[in-house]
This record gives sequence, structure tokens and C-alpha cells, in this order.
Amino acid sequence: MTQTVYDMVILGAGSGGYAAALRGAQLGLTVALIEADKVGGTCLHRGCVPTKAVLHAAETAEAVREAGALGIRASFEGVDMAGVQEYKNGVVTRMYKGLTGLVSSRGIDLIQGWGRLVANNAVEVDGRRIEGRNIVLASGSVSKTIGQEISGGVLTSEEALELDRVPASGVILGGGVIGVEFASAWASMGSQVTIIEGLPHLVPNEDEAISKQLERAFRKRKIAFHTSTMFESVERHDGGVTVRTADGKTHEAEVMLIAVGRGPATQNLGYEEVGVAMDRGFVLADEYGRTNIEGVWAVGDIVPGVQLAHRGFAQGIVVAEKIAGQDPAPVDDVLVPKVTFCEPEIASVGLSEAKAVEIHGREAVTTSEFNVAGNAKSQILGTQGFVKLVSLKDGPIIGFHAIGTRMGEQIGEGQLIVSWEADAHDVASLVHAHPTQNETLGEAAMALAGKPLHNHG
Amino acid sequence: MTQTVYDMVILGAGSGGYAAALRGAQLGLTVALIEADKVGGTCLHRGCVPTKAVLHAAETAEAVREAGALGIRASFEGVDMAGVQEYKNGVVTRMYKGLTGLVSSRGIDLIQGWGRLVANNAVEVDGRRIEGRNIVLASGSVSKTIGQEISGGVLTSEEALELDRVPASGVILGGGVIGVEFASAWASMGSQVTIIEGLPHLVPNEDEAISKQLERAFRKRKIAFHTSTMFESVERHDGGVTVRTADGKTHEAEVMLIAVGRGPATQNLGYEEVGVAMDRGFVLADEYGRTNIEGVWAVGDIVPGVQLAHRGFAQGIVVAEKIAGQDPAPVDDVLVPKVTFCEPEIASVGLSEAKAVEIHGREAVTTSEFNVAGNAKSQILGTQGFVKLVSLKDGPIIGFHAIGTRMGEQIGEGQLIVSWEADAHDVASLVHAHPTQNETLGEAAMALAGKPLHNHG
Repeated sequence: MTQTVYDMVILGAGSGGYAAALRGAQLGLTVALIEADKVGGTCLHRGCVPTKAVLHAAETAEAVREAGALGIRASFEGVDMAGVQEYKNGVVTRMYKGLTGLVSSRGIDLIQGWGRLVANNAVEVDGRRIEGRNIVLASGSVSKTIGQEISGGVLTSEEALELDRVPASGVILGGGVIGVEFASAWASMGSQVTIIEGLPHLVPNEDEAISKQLERAFRKRKIAFHTSTMFESVERHDGGVTVRTADGKTHEAEVMLIAVGRGPATQNLGYEEVGVAMDRGFVLADEYGRTNIEGVWAVGDIVPGVQLAHRGFAQGIVVAEKIAGQDPAPVDDVLVPKVTFCEPEIASVGLSEAKAVEIHGREAVTTSEFNVAGNAKSQILGTQGFVKLVSLKDGPIIGFHAIGTRMGEQIGEGQLIVSWEADAHDVASLVHAHPTQNETLGEAAMALAGKPLHNHG
Repeated sequence: MTQTVYDMVILGAGSGGYAAALRGAQLGLTVALIEADKVGGTCLHRGCVPTKAVLHAAETAEAVREAGALGIRASFEGVDMAGVQEYKNGVVTRMYKGLTGLVSSRGIDLIQGWGRLVANNAVEVDGRRIEGRNIVLASGSVSKTIGQEISGGVLTSEEALELDRVPASGVILGGGVIGVEFASAWASMGSQVTIIEGLPHLVPNEDEAISKQLERAFRKRKIAFHTSTMFESVERHDGGVTVRTADGKTHEAEVMLIAVGRGPATQNLGYEEVGVAMDRGFVLADEYGRTNIEGVWAVGDIVPGVQLAHRGFAQGIVVAEKIAGQDPAPVDDVLVPKVTFCEPEIASVGLSEAKAVEIHGREAVTTSEFNVAGNAKSQILGTQGFVKLVSLKDGPIIGFHAIGTRMGEQIGEGQLIVSWEADAHDVASLVHAHPTQNETLGEAAMALAGKPLHNHG
């Protein structure tokens, strides 16, 4: 029997890995896709998708509670967590079925098992050697646990997604994306939530104006948070946990969710042994996904930068195209859009004002905000928030930031504006549809162009 | 006392009129804004804004009814129409307050009263002559009534918005934007709805694929509709109306809503007498709003074309800028985005496939669809639909069409793509955020560029 040598052997079938596989197969490459768990990885099974399903259930709970204010008579009678799980799992199962159908329809060899890099052209799976002219490392990430045992009332997002009840109360370590999403969902479903964040603001990677607006909204929603506050210890006891912070305070809750970020899943996979250059567990790769070893590539959460599924998709596609001899544009992390699905939602792409000033200097940067109080659809939804554009003076718009109910979906126009280096006049001259939330972008651009329409002050 | 001669005298303070006023004042022009009713016009007081508020109340009723499927225990106990009215009027009042604040802060002379054009440089209001170097006609539109008396159970959208109850049943004449929005809202609130449409499809101005998808969705929602069916007569009786159609059938209902479009409000305003060129009641104006009379301009629904508030805004701004001596780009109706807020929502801009083929020939046109079944966020929302791009082969994307729950807000990216003449590769190379509905645009563009990611078949 002749051993096949694949054009691509991909270690991990999460967002980055399966995107590389799909694109590679499309370009005529022979592809082996190795996965110990399920195709789709963290994002589909334990991350983005199930979290957003839970957030939509939570949004629905809020809608029921607030229905009376709109003239809709309704009673909220509680959350049936088994029902939420069934709904959430139904969504994941449908998407999973679609994805496995795609993978098999494109002639990709899906190899089930735990793969390990054993040479610069080979991966071993359960004693079987799979050879490839190119190896794509795509082993993903795992929740950081900061040395805590995940048991009892101490959870990561993975356990939090599988809870059979709404916790009466929760302390959430970390006010980043995952932390604020769970805080939002739990609060909507009736939990008392307290966020502990070491940095001075919630969502510290966003523009500071966005962080402040989210903090206002969370205060209104009675979601407690302590910023510039370090976690010290957690003690498990009957009925819950006691969380101690460095300021000497203690916080009692039913559960503690550790949401301090995700680390690369690169241990015991043979990467170091084969000589792949790494840094604190991450695999170093250039903007085309090339590691220090010819023919070994890396994509997704194991590569330093923003850990987002769509960055993984884009990197996977670029790597497949490079291997197939094409000349794709590299993935630029600054142009990777970010959406946080808490209530209110956050969308951003490009530079924050602070970052723009750091790079270009205070004098070169100008900004424009449009408050959704002046936007009819946002008033109909009863939300507060704004759109903020960061621009070079007489130059392109280099940052887009938005916050408000459902504003996450405005990322599309924001992304085009920033990626295509549009200036205020380019956008201001376009007609934005009334009465949509999308109008806020037109209004912000008109204000930036010196011709505000519905902008006060 | 010296009589002021204004730079601009604007007849009508709806979307087109007030936008012209705000922009004119900003550019240093002296402005008189004449309005018999309230600033904001049809859109704010009797059209877009209150309708969308009612639609959001209806959406909330659906959310309550469907909450159980998401694990949220809730009971739907009916619609309190007085409560819906209060909510709707609250939104309108807040927006109205903001708008009047804007108008007064910009030093515009708001003249309350019924204005009439009496010369090519003057309008008369309650016996007072207001002179202007430029006159902007912006008198808006009224619901067509096709010769029917509006009384008893026979309504236009204006009366329908003020109903003190949810009608148990309604026949809606017209399956265009207004018809399908009311059909959707009423059905969500518990009405038995029947639409009568003379043309072969619902929303006949949309791409045919969109019409067909809406028809599928309405069938599922048990909204009855009869296309290619002409209205013949209506008979009022105790408890309702009997509607007869040309096919000999009769339809019993509590109310009949006439939603066959809006006609220009140009009667008895002196336009003909002063010699303004008109056609079937519409004022003829070029793409800069110029009528046949030097110094007399026209904007908004009285000018033939799509009757949308944001077209009025854009035309008002262009006219003010022309008067101020600037050189604005004209408003191109093809690039005016359209959003229909029924459930599922519809968004479109540019050319339909049929129109593109008519203009460019079958061989020159190609299309791409992405079904939202492959989009995680849309699955979370439980919707069906698609994004369709119409493109010239190896050329720009010239049409964007979308349908699905909440898909209206995707109009922003659609508008930029079409307005900036992007091609498939321009859009496909951008990273779209996961898991948003906005991803569907990226997927459709990737498919169009020959590199589908999650597209089946």
C-alpha cells in the first residue's frame, strides 16, 4: 500500500483549520483534517455560537419582562434551563450538520483522533503517520484557569454554558468580551452578577468611550463591577463560593466564572520538539501564517493576536491560498472586526481614539459621535449608545466604534469604511435608510464632514 | 417695517423640507419653514416612525409567544392597544421634541400655517406674504383612497395607526411596503389578515426572489394573500366590511386598509397657477431639485420617484447646497436604499436581477445567493431568508437584496458596496465578524468571487 502524501495536513478542525481545509480542497489540494473532538471546534461547540444562543434566550427574557411598556401583556414565569440548553444545542447541531456536510462534500479526509506533530512534514494520529507537503497547526485555545481547579462552583465558560440552572448569583473574573457576555446573559435571566476586572475599565480593549457607556448601561442594569481590582482567592463552600479580592473585600456567590481570556492549546503536541518557534505557548507566524519552519504554518488562536473565529477563517483561507500558489492579501489584525454580544452590543474595527493619537499624534486625529437618542429606530428599541468615528483630519476614517441594542450588526458598514479608507465626505454623501439604526453611521459621517443633519450640539 | 426676503422659503416641514431648512441654515442662508401641521411631517407623525414602533410592539408579541421554544417561560396575555399607542406616541413625541429643538437652535423661522405659492418668489400664509429668493416646494404626500370614503371600517394607514383595538380581521388592499408592514404587525398581534394585490407578487418593486421568499414566509405565518387580483368594491355593514374582488370572490373582515400607495399633496397650493410644470399631480424636478421656474425647487414625495423619507432628506440637503452655491452630487434614485420592516425584513439597493438583465443583457449579469440557513446568528434568531448580490460579470456589484428577521440593518454594507461599485473580490477579501448576520454578505461575496466558504451547493 502506498502512503498518500497530502498537500495539506491540518491539525485541528476549528474555525482556522476547517476554513483552510475547505479553501484548500476548493483549490484542488489534497487535504487531511485531523480532529480529536468535533469539526467546528471551540467556536461552534463551546464558544461563539452556543454563547450567542444563550444571549438570545436572555434577550427574549428581557423582551418578555419589558413587553408591558410596549402595550404587550405578558408574564415572565422564569427560565427553564433545560429548555435553553435544548434550544442552544439545536442551533449547534444544525450548524454542525451543515459543516460536516460541507467538509465531506469537498473530498476532505477527516481523520478522527488526537494528532501530534512528529516531523516538519508529518503528524501522528493513534500510531498512524500522516504525511503532508504542508502542515497547518490549528490546535486552538482553552480557557485560562489561573491555577484554579475547575470544580464545584468554579467554572470556565465551557462549564457555564452547560449549567442546568440559572445561578442565583455569580462572580465573574474578567470584564473582557467573555465576561461581559456572561454577565449580560445571567443578569437578564435573573442572576445577581458581580464582575471583577483588573484593568481600569470593562471591555478594556475597546475605545474608552465605549467602555464608559457600557459601564453606565451595566449600572442601570444592576450588574455590579469592580474595576482596577485584582482577584486574590476563592474558597468553595456549601452553596457557593467566597471570592476575595486584593482590596480586602469578599464577594459571596453561587458560582465563580473565570473569564480572563484563552491560552493557546499547544502543549504536548510536539511543536517544540520539531523546532517550531514559540513564545509563551503561542506559535509565532508571519502575516501569511508561515512559521519558522518551511512548510509548517499556523492559524487561529495559537497565533498571537485577537482570538476570534473570523480571524481564524481568514487566516485559514490565506494559508490555503499561499500553499496553492496564489497571492492573497495578508490578514491585518487591525482590520479584524470585533463584536461583543452583551446588552448593549458593541461593535468596533480599526483604531480606538487613544491608539490613533498614539500612532498619528493628537493634532492629526479628529472624532465624531452620534448619540442614538437622535435615532428613531434606537428610540423604538429603547436603547442608549452612540456611534463614534475616529478619523485623520482631512483623511480617512481609521476607527469605527458603536454601542447600543443590536448595534453589533452595524459592523458591516463600519468594516467597509475603515478597510476601504473612506473619508467623512465619502460616507456623508451616501443615503442611509430611514428609520434604521444604520442611519447613525450616516449621521456620524455627516457630522464629521461638517454637515450634521440630526446631530445636536 | 422692512419685509425680510429670505434666502429660502420652504413650503412644508416634512423630511425633505426640514432637511433643506437645517442644511440651509447651517450654510448661512436665512430660512423660513412653513408648516400647517407639525415639523416632521408624515414620516415622523403618521408614517415611518409610528409604524416601526407598532411593528416593534408586534415583534415583541411574537417574541413572547415563541419564548417557550428558547426555554423562556412566558405567557402572552393579549395586546393592550392603548398601551401600544402610548408607547408609539412616546417615541414620536421624543423625536419631535429633538427635531423642534434642532430647528429652533439653528435660527430657522418656523411659520405655522397653511402656505400657498402665490408667485415664483412668494408664499402666502394666512394673508401674510413671505418672500424668498428661493422657494422650495416640499408639501409631501397623502394616502391614496381610490375614490373610497375613509370612514367606518375603511381606513388608510393614518387611521390604522390610531386604532384603539387590534382588528379581529383585516383586508389590506395593496401588497407593497405599507401593506405588508401592516399585514405583518396585525398578524403578529392576532388578526386574520388577507392582502389583495393587483400585481403578480407581493412587494412587486423588489427582486422577484425576495417577493417569493416573503410569500413563503407569509404563508407560514398564515397571512392570506391574493396576487394578480383586482379590488372591485367594498360594502360597509354592522361589524365590518365585505370586500369584493374582480374574480367574483368576497372577503369578510372587520376593517379594510387601503394601502395602494401615496399621491402627491399638491392640490390647491397654487403650483399650477404660478406655472410650475407638473405631471399627474407630481412636480417635475431635475436631479438637483430644480423645477421649470428659476428659483423654485421641489423635494420629497411630490417629485416622481421612490417616496422615502431619506430620499427627501438627501434631496433637501442637495437643494440647500445648490442654493448656497455649492456643488453637491445629485440624488440617484437607484442608489436610494429601501428597507421594508415586515417580518421577515427586506433590504435592497441598486438593481434587481430582472432590471440588471434588462439594462445590461443576460450575458453580462451574474448573481450569488447565500441562504441564512448557513448563518449561525440567523439560525439563533430562527429565521429563513437569503442575501442576493447582482453583479456584472467581472465587474461591480450593482444590486443588493436581503430578506430575513432583522436583515433590514444589513442595508448599510449593501449600500456601500453598490454605491462604491465594489466587485466580488473587494468584498470577499474583507473579514466579516462571526457570528453576525452581517457574515451573510461576506459569504455571498465569497461565493460570487468563486471562493465560497460556508455556501452549500
